[in-house]
Amino acid sequence: MSGISTKGEKHLVLAAGRAHPVLAQEVASELGIDLLPMDAWDFANGEIYVRYGESVRGADVFVLQAHPAPLNNWLVEHLIMVDALKRASAKRITAIAPSYPYARQDKKHRGREPISARLVADLYRTAGIDRMISVDLHAPQVQGYFDGPVDHLMAMPILSGYVKEHYGDEDLCVVSPDAGRIAVAEKWAKVLGSVPLAFIHKSRDPKKPNQAVAKRVIGNVSGKTCILVDDMIDTAGTIVQAVEALKENGANSVVVATTHPIFSDPATERLRNADIREVICTNTLPIPEEKKFETLTQLSIAPLLARAIRAVFDDGSVTSLFDGDV
Amino acid sequence: MSGISTKGEKHLVLAAGRAHPVLAQEVASELGIDLLPMDAWDFANGEIYVRYGESVRGADVFVLQAHPAPLNNWLVEHLIMVDALKRASAKRITAIAPSYPYARQDKKHRGREPISARLVADLYRTAGIDRMISVDLHAPQVQGYFDGPVDHLMAMPILSGYVKEHYGDEDLCVVSPDAGRIAVAEKWAKVLGSVPLAFIHKSRDPKKPNQAVAKRVIGNVSGKTCILVDDMIDTAGTIVQAVEALKENGANSVVVATTHPIFSDPATERLRNADIREVICTNTLPIPEEKKFETLTQLSIAPLLARAIRAVFDDGSVTSLFDGDV
Amino acid sequence: MSGISTKGEKHLVLAAGRAHPVLAQEVASELGIDLLPMDAWDFANGEIYVRYGESVRGADVFVLQAHPAPLNNWLVEHLIMVDALKRASAKRITAIAPSYPYARQDKKHRGREPISARLVADLYRTAGIDRMISVDLHAPQVQGYFDGPVDHLMAMPILSGYVKEHYGDEDLCVVSPDAGRIAVAEKWAKVLGSVPLAFIHKSRDPKKPNQAVAKRVIGNVSGKTCILVDDMIDTAGTIVQAVEALKENGANSVVVATTHPIFSDPATERLRNADIREVICTNTLPIPEEKKFETLTQLSIAPLLARAIRAVFDDGSVTSLFDGDV
Amino acid sequence: MSGISTKGEKHLVLAAGRAHPVLAQEVASELGIDLLPMDAWDFANGEIYVRYGESVRGADVFVLQAHPAPLNNWLVEHLIMVDALKRASAKRITAIAPSYPYARQDKKHRGREPISARLVADLYRTAGIDRMISVDLHAPQVQGYFDGPVDHLMAMPILSGYVKEHYGDEDLCVVSPDAGRIAVAEKWAKVLGSVPLAFIHKSRDPKKPNQAVAKRVIGNVSGKTCILVDDMIDTAGTIVQAVEALKENGANSVVVATTHPIFSDPATERLRNADIREVICTNTLPIPEEKKFETLTQLSIAPLLARAIRAVFDDGSVTSLFDGDV
Amino acid sequence: MSGISTKGEKHLVLAAGRAHPVLAQEVASELGIDLLPMDAWDFANGEIYVRYGESVRGADVFVLQAHPAPLNNWLVEHLIMVDALKRASAKRITAIAPSYPYARQDKKHRGREPISARLVADLYRTAGIDRMISVDLHAPQVQGYFDGPVDHLMAMPILSGYVKEHYGDEDLCVVSPDAGRIAVAEKWAKVLGSVPLAFIHKSRDPKKPNQAVAKRVIGNVSGKTCILVDDMIDTAGTIVQAVEALKENGANSVVVATTHPIFSDPATERLRNADIREVICTNTLPIPEEKKFETLTQLSIAPLLARAIRAVFDDGSVTSLFDGDV
Amino acid sequence: MSGISTKGEKHLVLAAGRAHPVLAQEVASELGIDLLPMDAWDFANGEIYVRYGESVRGADVFVLQAHPAPLNNWLVEHLIMVDALKRASAKRITAIAPSYPYARQDKKHRGREPISARLVADLYRTAGIDRMISVDLHAPQVQGYFDGPVDHLMAMPILSGYVKEHYGDEDLCVVSPDAGRIAVAEKWAKVLGSVPLAFIHKSRDPKKPNQAVAKRVIGNVSGKTCILVDDMIDTAGTIVQAVEALKENGANSVVVATTHPIFSDPATERLRNADIREVICTNTLPIPEEKKFETLTQLSIAPLLARAIRAVFDDGSVTSLFDGDV
Repeated sequence: MSGISTKGEKHLVLAAGRAHPVLAQEVASELGIDLLPMDAWDFANGEIYVRYGESVRGADVFVLQAHPAPLNNWLVEHLIMVDALKRASAKRITAIAPSYPYARQDKKHRGREPISARLVADLYRTAGIDRMISVDLHAPQVQGYFDGPVDHLMAMPILSGYVKEHYGDEDLCVVSPDAGRIAVAEKWAKVLGSVPLAFIHKSRDPKKPNQAVAKRVIGNVSGKTCILVDDMIDTAGTIVQAVEALKENGANSVVVATTHPIFSDPATERLRNADIREVICTNTLPIPEEKKFETLTQLSIAPLLARAIRAVFDDGSVTSLFDGDV
Repeated sequence: MSGISTKGEKHLVLAAGRAHPVLAQEVASELGIDLLPMDAWDFANGEIYVRYGESVRGADVFVLQAHPAPLNNWLVEHLIMVDALKRASAKRITAIAPSYPYARQDKKHRGREPISARLVADLYRTAGIDRMISVDLHAPQVQGYFDGPVDHLMAMPILSGYVKEHYGDEDLCVVSPDAGRIAVAEKWAKVLGSVPLAFIHKSRDPKKPNQAVAKRVIGNVSGKTCILVDDMIDTAGTIVQAVEALKENGANSVVVATTHPIFSDPATERLRNADIREVICTNTLPIPEEKKFETLTQLSIAPLLARAIRAVFDDGSVTSLFDGDV
Repeated sequence: MSGISTKGEKHLVLAAGRAHPVLAQEVASELGIDLLPMDAWDFANGEIYVRYGESVRGADVFVLQAHPAPLNNWLVEHLIMVDALKRASAKRITAIAPSYPYARQDKKHRGREPISARLVADLYRTAGIDRMISVDLHAPQVQGYFDGPVDHLMAMPILSGYVKEHYGDEDLCVVSPDAGRIAVAEKWAKVLGSVPLAFIHKSRDPKKPNQAVAKRVIGNVSGKTCILVDDMIDTAGTIVQAVEALKENGANSVVVATTHPIFSDPATERLRNADIREVICTNTLPIPEEKKFETLTQLSIAPLLARAIRAVFDDGSVTSLFDGDV
Repeated sequence: MSGISTKGEKHLVLAAGRAHPVLAQEVASELGIDLLPMDAWDFANGEIYVRYGESVRGADVFVLQAHPAPLNNWLVEHLIMVDALKRASAKRITAIAPSYPYARQDKKHRGREPISARLVADLYRTAGIDRMISVDLHAPQVQGYFDGPVDHLMAMPILSGYVKEHYGDEDLCVVSPDAGRIAVAEKWAKVLGSVPLAFIHKSRDPKKPNQAVAKRVIGNVSGKTCILVDDMIDTAGTIVQAVEALKENGANSVVVATTHPIFSDPATERLRNADIREVICTNTLPIPEEKKFETLTQLSIAPLLARAIRAVFDDGSVTSLFDGDV
Repeated sequence: MSGISTKGEKHLVLAAGRAHPVLAQEVASELGIDLLPMDAWDFANGEIYVRYGESVRGADVFVLQAHPAPLNNWLVEHLIMVDALKRASAKRITAIAPSYPYARQDKKHRGREPISARLVADLYRTAGIDRMISVDLHAPQVQGYFDGPVDHLMAMPILSGYVKEHYGDEDLCVVSPDAGRIAVAEKWAKVLGSVPLAFIHKSRDPKKPNQAVAKRVIGNVSGKTCILVDDMIDTAGTIVQAVEALKENGANSVVVATTHPIFSDPATERLRNADIREVICTNTLPIPEEKKFETLTQLSIAPLLARAIRAVFDDGSVTSLFDGDV
Repeated sequence: MSGISTKGEKHLVLAAGRAHPVLAQEVASELGIDLLPMDAWDFANGEIYVRYGESVRGADVFVLQAHPAPLNNWLVEHLIMVDALKRASAKRITAIAPSYPYARQDKKHRGREPISARLVADLYRTAGIDRMISVDLHAPQVQGYFDGPVDHLMAMPILSGYVKEHYGDEDLCVVSPDAGRIAVAEKWAKVLGSVPLAFIHKSRDPKKPNQAVAKRVIGNVSGKTCILVDDMIDTAGTIVQAVEALKENGANSVVVATTHPIFSDPATERLRNADIREVICTNTLPIPEEKKFETLTQLSIAPLLARAIRAVFDDGSVTSLFDGDV
């Protein structure tokens, strides 16, 4: 063949948006590399400008962004960063969104609604990603919103490991705060050693028509240490109502475990005041200092992300990172 | 403007595959029209040939196919029919798949699996559909596998209306056969008048390590008429185990209600032999005569489909057909 | 043909985001219709929820959003609104973005930058628009970022009509605040009756290496009423420097005319304090009461938008709306 | 519904490129309309500029271009015209290419070749067509190069009607000039009343290794009026060799019938000098006056195109135009 | 550059569907590798489940499937396998379909038909293939149904080599069973040493209107060993009629050579009873033991496929595999 | 993993169209390689045939074409070459179009026009390119017409280096021939050392209504050596009018510098006869011998292209090639 031949090489590069610099730095440290230098600033009207400080030609780029408030801002920044990588000839672009934006709007609950979680997938694809890495999607079906590979990582081993270590000797019970999340609670029950299961059922007593919705506990929680599990805590309204119902039904104590600490107001106030022994979460989202409270334990997701990045780059299997015992 | 101007017209046409001619005819009758004539045959190696007997130029075509066994055959026939409509200049093509193919493979349960439900959506889009109508998707997130409009119809009003009429006076309890379907059961409970809820929890007793998986009933079913609800019944294994567990826990009687009667062997035998008062289903799938049994009641989905078709054609709202009480 | 035939109808519907309700209402009033009812709210983390209150099946929907700060929020709201329209079976969706988001990032000024203006076009296409209407794009080449029709409306007739009416008798001169916008100034000069032209040239005097960039006026402005024209005013830094340079070069007075009043801080303060006779702008963007000042005149763009909407709906020519004297 | 409702209308518009104005005018006359006014000129370097003189918003536009030499020029003009229609909001665009460009490069005859006929299909789709109309594709599989509707019209009824009228009483034989076109010849044989068939086989006699390729006539042509049929005549080399072989094998006379008269040099000279009774063709391509000769008969394709356009516009069936007796 | 650099590697992986395990194993053996482990089973309604047993991240995967009856089943399995590879981050996916599905439906023979061969190409692309390898496409234009590379392998050297070895000394004649396949027969005639050519022409004698269609032999076959060639044999009806016509016209003996032995009933019975000296085919399709017969010779296509796979993986030229003497 | 593993390699291949063989050879020489062998010829009707003489499987191919008259021919040849590369399994295809076709039709100047520059981008994408390299785009926004990477090279350093070397000691002034190109002139002014700037303003004197358009010089050029800069010279009408205006305004001498010498008639005659000291251009386009003239200096763009190709192949940064001092 006419032409020039050389050995191929491949380069791992990690870029990060501005939403959660601590997590970005932790992941880089786990990988033993520096973050890709980037200039980024906001115009007064909110427009974002980014420019990378080094070439990414031919690189296998992982671009991490967290999605706390103001979420749309960080989402658009993420998209713009991907566009710049694409136009700068990155070879492969993997977006990392530890807490997937608009994960809860994953179907039309009623007519004339958007399916924003699918829209978000399409926006990422349009911007130019080849792959997506996320953690504990609200509905695992969201994987199917992408046409290409999605590495769906599980934080449960991190959270359940902590629970086993600190509460493993007690008489446990796994509780789902509503009917829609029982499948996740079932996995927890299995991992913790086939412990009993319960869930909170929201209903209106047909015989007392004027009374408000009641939270009924389905399953037996009396005398138990309840592990109340959910993928995310937003305003914590559902969670604290569940805690109350559990206590009313004789629960010994309640430990809350969640992956995504959205903690919108008044979550902190509610969680601080509720009768909760410990709230365990990860750092897929940053928690401002003023929103932290005494019983809160935040475990880092960075080692999990770093292992996934390295495995993807090395064409290793990441199944072990998300396949667990299932 | 140079040229010719005429008043626009629009034409509704209903085409149907060969999987479930009875349903197709029922829908056509509800609409008061004939089915689009079509020649279709199978080559000996399984290849399918179709040709329409009338022009569909400029028509608003609804193309109905059911998906019983052999499912892949009917799926490919559906795709080929859509291709022929597209190439024959149909103006708009709406596929109607009352029981969505591969609905259960809606996520990667483990690594290195397909997401066949998304693949199916993409195959339909590739063949040329503009819109999809389906009934009781296994996971409502499947709506998001399509980039365009999906009309997700609900069979529950048909089934629950029947239940209310025949069992409304009894002491009811709605039961989900597993943790993953409780959200649907919750809707049933609400529609039937805030009746109590229960579900079957599959678990292994940690203290009896050699014993098989047990089916525990979470919730109180004692003395009640249990309405056991699920979106589909395939081999009926899960259902009859649930029935046994309910009876063991003191249920008075069990009525099964489901939308999609897949009824793969040995479903009929199991259902016939189980202690079930009545099995209520729709005709989204055909049930061969030899698979029917005494306690089976099949309600027609045709009026629902016909109303949806007419509303879509007339640009009317179909929200009332799937939005129910939510 | 088998089937049902009816006369076709077409329906114009106007939806609007929450960024600029006054403009939306003005456009609706010009059209003599109500806005499409919509529920919209923000989750605490910034996620937006929307739902339309009426069916849009088969409708020709125009969906208007302005893009002031926080721009990314309004952009994502616009995209979500389009997604909901698409999934609700709107027949045709025309996005109206009077001030196109990220219009200034229309090329890679340097390597490793995004082309956000193209990205925005692709995001709209992905969400599901068929057409775009915008006003005074920063670079007209942005029309080419869309694969489909773009109606690029011109506010100049509105602004120049006002200038002619109020300053037509004076000795005018059109001035461009920098080299890149002279083509627009040339159009103004022509419309105002072939008045003279000047522009501000930013340069560094090579003989005085330590001195900052100087603003030189190229062209003769002495004794003239200068009409300083630009498509947008952001922080007004460039504009007030231009005003100073013009006054130093003997300009009699300076009138500023612009389409898009971004007015980021400290624009209002600068414009209020500068030696400007009048600042004329349109309402493509809302100006909060506290940012208004005495010499500001805001002309409504609503009649122009309404005429364009009606012409598009009626398949009339809108060339007259943007083709003017060119 | 909020908004405005009006009755829909549809408008047929016919635009035409500059390659074959006579045909364009004939088609317009058949339809009883004027061609869409268009400015078009060539820059000195060959770039083409087009602009339409009237609005095409919402119109059902048919855009006709012939493809004689210089073919690439007319192809690009056609694409540019489609782009302008798309951006001017035409509702539906049907390209009419009576002689499909690059029809002969419909497969890779050898490795490292293009498949230009597919490329052309994709270029048209990219420019923005919804549908294609063509006449006598070299390989009917080219229909499949389009994702959407193709109306493949047949000129054979026009040509064979003429043959029947003028030669129907003689002892006919249909001849294919090479092995690859016999399927077409078979259709001719059937239409002319099951007349005999023959073809020319190019081969090298293995027993005479130094001799050049021979043209053998397979089938009996002795004493017959041979109708030599092909879809196109380019330089006429194959055709005149076939004529010679037929005469050598005792043919009484030879009549040539073809759809597309490419007539590249030295076609006219060859055809004029060959022992051919008559050459019958259509006007899918223009024949300059200086290339015409005495025995040439050119039949107009315009009525066929006009009927197809009208049928497509009216959503009538065009099957009768291309389905003939097959 | 920040980040990690490593040497690139590439990995060849061979996966295979369940339709023809013998061929898959032969190809793997030729390559000296194991097949990718895969779990696959059928649900009772026909839905297929697959999961790979090893990681394919970054691999260059070749996924082989044969397409015998029930063809639609194997086609869908193939698509699902591709989807799973895509989502498992395979770097490049090459589908191998030795006998291309729906190859015969490669055009609209009449209006309102599908072009299923194009649809199949689009389904594969949608599922996620980058490249296709097939053998002896019914129409070579099908290559153009793909937007990307197609390696179109030729079985003729295998078949013709066998014919030359066993029949090379006899007085040969190549025969096409119908007009549409003569181009292939011409290639055979050339490869066998410019032997004479003939074909069977189906026609109705116009002077005997009530008589059925006759099979006329065009060309001289008297006293010759006829090599009757076709790309596929389905029910063998056309072939055995051709054999009869050849014998009636004085053929000495008839040898049948074909690439794809579809052998739908009653092919075996017909071929066994016909006056055929030998039927030679390849194993692109499996032939069940009960369908084999004495005069059948099946030659393996596996060495050809293995060489193509290895050349594609090594970026070597495969032109030598399909370009032959053409 | 089952399968075969080998080290990856990458291969640079340079292919070239027939429009400008001298430039192609210069680039190949700079790279120290041979051009990819290619057969290419024209059919009499203008259709182009190409075939490569060597395998390009897995290669990183750069395919160069210049675009002089007849431009559409060379454009289509370029597209066909890309199609052949894509189908021959090239790994990555970078088109090099030193003078981008239809660069001036980059927006709708008026309604009902095409945006041919965008269309061209889409045609290249459709044919199969992954990346584009071009020089001095008429509007840099054209970069945004591509979804992927564009390397926009700048010829200014070549041209301005020459100017500095030959005219650096004189009293320089940079002049833009019209308002639309002043931004480029400003860059020149900066590179030449903050020299003064002027431009030619086309206007009609409102007080002399019957007089033709006048060319006014805005800025002071008296006594200066004017460097008249433009990206391209077509018929040279604008340029020679500018020269005249500059001389009338007291310019000492005029030097013309341009990247793309289109030189359509009567450019050569005009430039030869005008009072121009030197015309400096590059060889992005070939200049036939008969169009050259005494004061013309043509500088080679080949070293710039070769450096860009090598940098892209090596994943090096090309920012230094186009980012200059900006």
